[in-house]
Amino acid sequence: MDSHHDCLFRAARDGYRWDEVTHAPYKRDGSAPFKDISRQVLFQEPTMGCELRYFEMDAAGYSTLERHEHAHAVMILRGHGRCLLGDTVRAVKPLDLVTIPAWTWHQFRASSDQPMGFLCMVNQTRDRPVLPNAQELAALRANPAVAAFLDGS
Amino acid sequence: MDSHHDCLFRAARDGYRWDEVTHAPYKRDGSAPFKDISRQVLFQEPTMGCELRYFEMDAAGYSTLERHEHAHAVMILRGHGRCLLGDTVRAVKPLDLVTIPAWTWHQFRASSDQPMGFLCMVNQTRDRPVLPNAQELAALRANPAVAAFLDGS
Repeated sequence: MDSHHDCLFRAARDGYRWDEVTHAPYKRDGSAPFKDISRQVLFQEPTMGCELRYFEMDAAGYSTLERHEHAHAVMILRGHGRCLLGDTVRAVKPLDLVTIPAWTWHQFRASSDQPMGFLCMVNQTRDRPVLPNAQELAALRANPAVAAFLDGS
Repeated sequence: MDSHHDCLFRAARDGYRWDEVTHAPYKRDGSAPFKDISRQVLFQEPTMGCELRYFEMDAAGYSTLERHEHAHAVMILRGHGRCLLGDTVRAVKPLDLVTIPAWTWHQFRASSDQPMGFLCMVNQTRDRPVLPNAQELAALRANPAVAAFLDGS
């Protein structure tokens, strides 16, 4: 049994943490516009084509507005909030499923009163996310519903 | 937007069902020893290396005792029960993580009082499961804890 299999059973702890799983708060570095979000990689098996991660935002937190070639398969696990996908804004709740296709702008925002967490399945081999430039951001904001979402209102 | 992307948002319904997701109860055909289990494929995207499925057993139900080359990455989502993995039996609860490596015997059993459901990430391309022959079953049952698990006691 190799080192990847040392922990075949990893128990859930209180507060959406897990034994043997590193809790990684994202650091603000000024370049990526996210707020109060953390990542935990739940499964990263060399023989599997995908990884499964758990992201959690504090109340009023949000993920980076970005897009990329690789797809995301998301299941909301905790809390409530909204999701921007392309030019659509939708309320999301626990167990809802969101498919994020290639090159589609997306961002998650937790409600103001509680954290929101979601599972995200993604290919192990993937391209780097791209942030919107000024022109792309202006095009997104031309839609009033999208502008309100991006303003957190 | 192609046909795979017709439903980017799929809402969770009550009872661990989802919009646009087919609920598939496993049929007993006498050859595979499982009991009261259903499958729902949550994500099956052509560009992704894996699928994400939700399996649910009724109270006292169980999955097939099997093994295969491909790995499983499992997160318990609902209820309580036990998991056999190799020669280990462990109690599992919501959000617990189970890694099922290649060629490892495994089976899930729900507690007697409520359903148990779990997410299972798996490679899209995979081999067929193999059931234990009489000799392998005897070897498993040589361990009293495993025998008690297999007997549902």
